[in-house]
Amino acid sequence: MKCTVCREPALIDLRRHNAAFCGEHHSRFCRDQVQRAIDDFDMFAPDARVLVAVSGGKDSLALWHLLKALGYDAHGLYLGLGIGEYSDASRDHVLAFTDAHDVPLVEIDLLDTFGYDIPTGAQASRRTPCSACGLSKRHLFDSAALDGGFDVLATGHNLDDEAAVLFGNVLHWQTEYLARQQPVLPAGAGFPRKVKPLVRLSEREMAAYCIINGIDYQVDECPMSAGNRHLAYKEALNGIESRSPGSKADFYFGFLRSAADVFQTATDDGSEPVPCETCGAPCSGGRCAFCRLVERAGGEPTMVRVDAPTRRSDQGGPT
Amino acid sequence: MKCTVCREPALIDLRRHNAAFCGEHHSRFCRDQVQRAIDDFDMFAPDARVLVAVSGGKDSLALWHLLKALGYDAHGLYLGLGIGEYSDASRDHVLAFTDAHDVPLVEIDLLDTFGYDIPTGAQASRRTPCSACGLSKRHLFDSAALDGGFDVLATGHNLDDEAAVLFGNVLHWQTEYLARQQPVLPAGAGFPRKVKPLVRLSEREMAAYCIINGIDYQVDECPMSAGNRHLAYKEALNGIESRSPGSKADFYFGFLRSAADVFQTATDDGSEPVPCETCGAPCSGGRCAFCRLVERAGGEPTMVRVDAPTRRSDQGGPT
Repeated sequence: MKCTVCREPALIDLRRHNAAFCGEHHSRFCRDQVQRAIDDFDMFAPDARVLVAVSGGKDSLALWHLLKALGYDAHGLYLGLGIGEYSDASRDHVLAFTDAHDVPLVEIDLLDTFGYDIPTGAQASRRTPCSACGLSKRHLFDSAALDGGFDVLATGHNLDDEAAVLFGNVLHWQTEYLARQQPVLPAGAGFPRKVKPLVRLSEREMAAYCIINGIDYQVDECPMSAGNRHLAYKEALNGIESRSPGSKADFYFGFLRSAADVFQTATDDGSEPVPCETCGAPCSGGRCAFCRLVERAGGEPTMVRVDAPTRRSDQGGPT
Repeated sequence: MKCTVCREPALIDLRRHNAAFCGEHHSRFCRDQVQRAIDDFDMFAPDARVLVAVSGGKDSLALWHLLKALGYDAHGLYLGLGIGEYSDASRDHVLAFTDAHDVPLVEIDLLDTFGYDIPTGAQASRRTPCSACGLSKRHLFDSAALDGGFDVLATGHNLDDEAAVLFGNVLHWQTEYLARQQPVLPAGAGFPRKVKPLVRLSEREMAAYCIINGIDYQVDECPMSAGNRHLAYKEALNGIESRSPGSKADFYFGFLRSAADVFQTATDDGSEPVPCETCGAPCSGGRCAFCRLVERAGGEPTMVRVDAPTRRSDQGGPT
């Protein structure tokens, strides 16, 4: 197997593109795909201040690396979820990345700032861990992006993620979620602009990117996500993809092209969110779900203000 | 494993209904599900003349048997496709059924009536065999139902079939097909009323029904359908169903409840079909696709008129 571009030995074959790449040209392919996603969906301008939500996994670290390589002003945001050793190891990977690349990081620790972690928060609020985690992430990603004055929040959702979420939403015909499943959600009504620059790249392509570029990432799945239905959806789509390479991309981009508008029109009820009584975040009324979660978990809902991002190279140096 | 109803040994467990049944109560369950589909979707009246398209496979023979058991006036329609031994064996199963149950059958043989069979028709028209077969069936089912003065044409599409077709239409976002994927298509513009009374029953439930009721059916898959993508969609959904029994039914009925209308509204362009110049069947203009297929295959497009249904017990008897 030879690289489609330079005929040197290839490291990865991409069946849906009928191509194979060496390390250098795979990295270039990934950069091109990210730039194309940014351009095609008008995600953000070349001089935008971008906040990248990083978990320590391959997708978010690769995204951060790719945005830097493309010349964007990309800051990291790491949320300490308090999921035992898994979170400890995840944070180590993020800090190793910031050390190696001298990039600015915003850190929020759930336990330090709000007095709960995902295991206790899930139990107290009677949510599944994935639900408590998703709620916490959405809320704190949004407030960190707004409070830090960033132009846009970027997350590492890749094509496999988006196709699996789409499949789940279609299997249950969650028409309101279908109406909002977009690679760009515009700012407005208390929400920051949110973008997914990896929608044109697969999980496997991201893992290869990390390996080629020496990015050491958290390989383990979250121990609390066992039995997550999402994994079954990914498997089902992988079966289709392996028989017909490109099916997943056709499914996701076909949705954006031919069906997303249909659901937007059908579910737009014109209602606007109102500010949460406690923290001011947009919600449907009263206290927002995040403040209720924090309170049930025995913590203190506060108006979170995010500290300025720091570079690790700034710390311990001369002041 | 005991029958949920009578506590006798069960022959089949139905995980999505959290039930198990003996032979007698499985047959009752199947009748109830068919009656419920007929009622819920207002398929046809108790005194309707129903034409059942029968292939010799489990679904269509079980449907015919079920409709008779429920007291409906159900006639069979068998299309001779000319797919070698497969078609010969299929016809034998249909004739064995009509002999055993003394029910009226309409037969149309493609080669005798139109001068082509599926293998030659597919080749001559440069269609896949499944495409040539689907086109021929749709056309001749419709004309046989109209010419024979039937109130409704019933096909043996079961829940697995409908969920797999829905999945395929969703994977490719075929919005026009999604708009038409209904258990009932009303009569109009040269089309007969068409219904799918097995939408509440699975493939496995139909196979068990046949075995329990001594219906000997064609077990082989059509030899021309190898590699059909439909089978991959079924496999993918089976993976989901085995982890979460009921997923397939939720997917299909959720679509009918929450999403089908959305596609109907979005794709209704108000255009009406016009009669084919040759046979008078509804089409988009000029000659219909069926007449073009027949002509390319060297046959003679004709205004088909279907003979009156015959009972095998009528033949060879005193006249």
